[in-house]
Amino acid sequence: MLQLYFFPMACSLASRIALTEAGIEARYHLAHIWTKKVVDDGSDFRSVSPKGAVPVLILENGERLTESAAVLQYIADLKPELGLAPRPGDPDRYRLQEWLSFIGAEIHKAFLFPTFWYKDDASLAKPRARIGQTLSVPATHLADREFLVGDRFTVADAHLTWALLLLRPAGVDIAQWPSLSAYLERMQARPAVREAIATEMALRKTVTA
Amino acid sequence: MLQLYFFPMACSLASRIALTEAGIEARYHLAHIWTKKVVDDGSDFRSVSPKGAVPVLILENGERLTESAAVLQYIADLKPELGLAPRPGDPDRYRLQEWLSFIGAEIHKAFLFPTFWYKDDASLAKPRARIGQTLSVPATHLADREFLVGDRFTVADAHLTWALLLLRPAGVDIAQWPSLSAYLERMQARPAVREAIATEMALRKTVTA
Repeated sequence: MLQLYFFPMACSLASRIALTEAGIEARYHLAHIWTKKVVDDGSDFRSVSPKGAVPVLILENGERLTESAAVLQYIADLKPELGLAPRPGDPDRYRLQEWLSFIGAEIHKAFLFPTFWYKDDASLAKPRARIGQTLSVPATHLADREFLVGDRFTVADAHLTWALLLLRPAGVDIAQWPSLSAYLERMQARPAVREAIATEMALRKTVTA
Repeated sequence: MLQLYFFPMACSLASRIALTEAGIEARYHLAHIWTKKVVDDGSDFRSVSPKGAVPVLILENGERLTESAAVLQYIADLKPELGLAPRPGDPDRYRLQEWLSFIGAEIHKAFLFPTFWYKDDASLAKPRARIGQTLSVPATHLADREFLVGDRFTVADAHLTWALLLLRPAGVDIAQWPSLSAYLERMQARPAVREAIATEMALRKTVTA
């Protein structure tokens, strides 16, 4: 059985959403990303992954896969018939990779990451100045589309749903972009998405910074 | 013919390396990432890509693909026989995606990007504090390997070669990690890599910030 190391409401939520949408059972291990302890048994999370970051997916053969862009494509490809990623060879597969990179680099790493890790205003001035321009890219794209890629839910939507959820605690009100608010509402209406978020919101209350 | 919008020695260098390694002819357009002008004709780069970022690859059908992770996989898949990316279905394809994400997010977006965009020490203290831990990941991996993925050069190596080249102007001496120095030397000894870097170093002198 697959195993996922996660921290509640961290970017590993996208991997949980993907597994839930795919109906794939997995064992979930809460890894505390600040203390670097695995909560199950108090072991050192860095012995699972030297990066000390979630998600870490333990594959059936015991290998460990990290980085949301890779983990999400791996999960999607386990059930190609569900279309959680366009099949390799479909030009839309590169669009999926383009969005996974944009969300991971421009929304997560250039904005959400400094917002949650750095507490001084000086470090945050530039990320805050850029986020409007960044969010205008998916806002424009989604003005007349239901999903990021093609005409169905993909793991890129799982990734963006997580990123949009985190913008509020990061101090950004997405109501400024009606297409993003409407998109997030549509995504949260999906049973698998709702279930994954409810599970992690409940677990989030059990861990302290 | 493919067209690549690039800025000399920006991350689009990885795409030029990939095209050169693949022996794929392309038209190159210098896009000034600070002024957002296309140098050829003075037109607005944001009308090519609203992101205003390189690389932008114009495909044969006129569509525009952005984000190094997607552009590099697209280029590699044009010549699957060269092995610039493991074929879809090969487990190593996810390792390639893992490295592309790590290089793009952790080395580029979390360190090189703030280093070149933000000039105040306060904004840079945290990125500088993290880069050693970040670089220990590829340094450890490459201690006993010639390439990042499998036993041949892939587009992940094109991406990391670019990132390592930029670390010096960003104030990081990679001699601290002998496996990274030796790797960069090996990569730079490849004719296609040398040619791509020489072309962009010469062009870099023609543009001003």
